[in-house]
Amino acid sequence: MLGTGIVGRTIAVALADLQHEVVIGTRDVAATLGRSSPPMGDWLAEQPRLRLVAYEHTAGCDLFVNATNGAGSLAALGAVGPGLSGRIVLDIANPLDFGRGFPPTLLVKDDDSLGEQLQRAFPAAKVVKTLNTVTAAVMVAPHLLPGPSTIFLSGDDADAKAVVRGILGSFGWIDILDLGGIDTARGTEMYLPLWIRTMQALGTPVFNVAVLR
Amino acid sequence: MLGTGIVGRTIAVALADLQHEVVIGTRDVAATLGRSSPPMGDWLAEQPRLRLVAYEHTAGCDLFVNATNGAGSLAALGAVGPGLSGRIVLDIANPLDFGRGFPPTLLVKDDDSLGEQLQRAFPAAKVVKTLNTVTAAVMVAPHLLPGPSTIFLSGDDADAKAVVRGILGSFGWIDILDLGGIDTARGTEMYLPLWIRTMQALGTPVFNVAVLR
Repeated sequence: MLGTGIVGRTIAVALADLQHEVVIGTRDVAATLGRSSPPMGDWLAEQPRLRLVAYEHTAGCDLFVNATNGAGSLAALGAVGPGLSGRIVLDIANPLDFGRGFPPTLLVKDDDSLGEQLQRAFPAAKVVKTLNTVTAAVMVAPHLLPGPSTIFLSGDDADAKAVVRGILGSFGWIDILDLGGIDTARGTEMYLPLWIRTMQALGTPVFNVAVLR
Repeated sequence: MLGTGIVGRTIAVALADLQHEVVIGTRDVAATLGRSSPPMGDWLAEQPRLRLVAYEHTAGCDLFVNATNGAGSLAALGAVGPGLSGRIVLDIANPLDFGRGFPPTLLVKDDDSLGEQLQRAFPAAKVVKTLNTVTAAVMVAPHLLPGPSTIFLSGDDADAKAVVRGILGSFGWIDILDLGGIDTARGTEMYLPLWIRTMQALGTPVFNVAVLR
């Protein structure tokens, strides 16, 4: 697990609950443990199944989940380095730019996507974009919503997408919509401005779209 | 009705079916009638309730529907001119840029929207953005889908939004989600890249999202 925010922690616990061996990678272990908001050290002390290591010590993992801040994802994956070779990168990050306040804009618009940037920067990895269209709680518990909703999938490698489909299925996702290659991540990343305004209108991040057809 | 494409024709017929008096505005009546693809003259001959007039002759209408090409919307509304003053503009257009082929990109990204551009250019009009997230057939017949789906609404004027809600209701829309001011049109316009890729994945434009919460 790359990233120690709410998404990283939520997915890490969910994967550990499913009997996966999970290590959480971060840039600077001491700094992350000392962080008070939210208090990472306290939280980790209650998670005996999870270890916190530096990014470069995640090498050897079978699969990487990118739950870092979108603005820092390239650097985070770069710190993992050659360990990404041949591995699946399940990419949840959105390239949000909070530089002008809320609501954020996108660092990458519709002529590129963060998913494609990661795939180009790490061509030996297999990037699969998914889960970036829902809040952390829904990612691992789609049954929170009153009916089956849709989760999107983008990636160039069919085998990698099949593995990710399996993980999504183990979280409870039923309607998994494969949009195509990693370039289709432009679609799900560009959805974020609508997600944010829907969240504001509803007063809750616990929602998702069901694609009716 | 501003615009003579498939969206303009579909909505014009639906409004006429609902006993509204409808005139269709276009830049150049003779050129539009002579257009062969799709054949406008033949179609109009079968629609005795609809009249085709020049944009400037739509003045006096109570409500304007902007179903023009997004790239030409400012010019089209400009041709209507002072007739827009105090009137509702139900804006369906998306600022799509086909200059680099398919899939299109957006002419306006998330620091502005076509809806806002129209509201700024015609401050005496009441712009309400809606219906721009579904294909023409679904706009006027949401029951084509297997269950209630969601249509979004953006606009600064509460009374204008109430009128548009009434029209949407008469088309059969039940779940009408008011996102807030016209600036929230950034959300629904930015959704287009996901809509296009979902359409490609499903092989049909006849779909819509239901926001489950």
